[in-house]
Amino acid sequence: MTRYALKIEYDGTSLAGWQEQKNAPSVQGLIQDAIEKFCFERTVVYAAGRTDAGVHARAMVAHVDIEKPTDAETIKSAVNFYLNKQPVILLDVVCVPDEFHARFAAKYRRYSYHILNRRSPAVLERDRVWWIPREINVDNMRIAACDLLGNHDFTSFRSSECQAKSPIKTMDKIEVDSVGDKIIINFGAISFLHHQVRNMVGTLVEIGLGKMDVNAIPGILSACDRRVAGPTAPASGLYFESVDYSDAIFDSNK
Amino acid sequence: MTRYALKIEYDGTSLAGWQEQKNAPSVQGLIQDAIEKFCFERTVVYAAGRTDAGVHARAMVAHVDIEKPTDAETIKSAVNFYLNKQPVILLDVVCVPDEFHARFAAKYRRYSYHILNRRSPAVLERDRVWWIPREINVDNMRIAACDLLGNHDFTSFRSSECQAKSPIKTMDKIEVDSVGDKIIINFGAISFLHHQVRNMVGTLVEIGLGKMDVNAIPGILSACDRRVAGPTAPASGLYFESVDYSDAIFDSNK
Repeated sequence: MTRYALKIEYDGTSLAGWQEQKNAPSVQGLIQDAIEKFCFERTVVYAAGRTDAGVHARAMVAHVDIEKPTDAETIKSAVNFYLNKQPVILLDVVCVPDEFHARFAAKYRRYSYHILNRRSPAVLERDRVWWIPREINVDNMRIAACDLLGNHDFTSFRSSECQAKSPIKTMDKIEVDSVGDKIIINFGAISFLHHQVRNMVGTLVEIGLGKMDVNAIPGILSACDRRVAGPTAPASGLYFESVDYSDAIFDSNK
Repeated sequence: MTRYALKIEYDGTSLAGWQEQKNAPSVQGLIQDAIEKFCFERTVVYAAGRTDAGVHARAMVAHVDIEKPTDAETIKSAVNFYLNKQPVILLDVVCVPDEFHARFAAKYRRYSYHILNRRSPAVLERDRVWWIPREINVDNMRIAACDLLGNHDFTSFRSSECQAKSPIKTMDKIEVDSVGDKIIINFGAISFLHHQVRNMVGTLVEIGLGKMDVNAIPGILSACDRRVAGPTAPASGLYFESVDYSDAIFDSNK
């Protein structure tokens, strides 16, 4: 048995999310099916982050154990061959120690959220952004985002289905950038609660639209009540960007 | 009758190109249909550039004459309402003098061409790039691009279907940028021949791949023979970026 780390890009639009489903295509299911066609083994692929339906990834990392004697390059080529035309692709495959775990060994995760802020609906970026036609005060979003930084109880920003033991997380980076008619928010932390990024974005947008006060965040955090924060932002604007481990596992030149 | 200028974004993937077709959706046809639903007039919409099937546009400009007394904002909203879910959208509509002509008054046109240069096929950018898995020498593309700048007879880079009276054009800008695994080439000129950008890209890629010499361009230009230049690059990587007129016709804040 050899353990491999996989670097994966996917377009979540037509997928039921990361997790394998009985009646809908998922990232995990599509990769496991492709591995089975090549190795004749039913494996389980474990990801650094189990994204929801509609969420995209530029460089998700996962690991899988394969019995068949083979090599990383062959796995990549064969799996990509069987993924032909699917919205999932392996960017890289490397052999890793048996102790490596894509989820539990992750030291830092990055997400980005993309908003298209213009009067006309998205066409070239359909299913890639949250389209908001009303005027947004980006400076107020930026000011409010600072109040989310650091160590907090994020119960107010947590999905009711979240399975994490503790609602306490540390946000290391929340950067709100405005580029043309796009607003891009970059998040960095060791880990996130279920729906945390989308709930933080939904709340920052309420503030940007003037529906919530620019100083609302501290009160929302201390309330520890999901109902006082803003709505969950749509999945289409969310990208799992990358994940770091204590060692760089992929060759950056690939 | 009032003449309006339209600023248009489109995703060319599922379209037969700009020009109206009998049995396939086109940008011109979809906009004319939407105007007819709103105004009950069959108009003709004239564009700055008649792009081919699969080519995208971020800000194509076109003009149209409408008899019905109305205003630019109403046209934009109504046409976008009828374009609902189509891969075409109006970004802006303004009233222009009757002499304005989107094609003949254009002073400067910009195109960009996007190449994804990595071993794994495109997923998030499928239908938005030319995927090239082999190694490309971008420096050689950049050196060769300089030989295309200026005033030349571009017969070797012209489609056999090109209807332009003269094959002589002036290329003002050809910039080859490398960003991560993307190669982006920006073009600027008063006007281009049919397929000229795609044929120049196809030739620069042959040079980047080492299949043609880095100094091949002057010989290709002077041969005045389409067969000596490289192949036509795929439509999916080409974007009509923008077009300038002697006056700025759109409010840049929209």
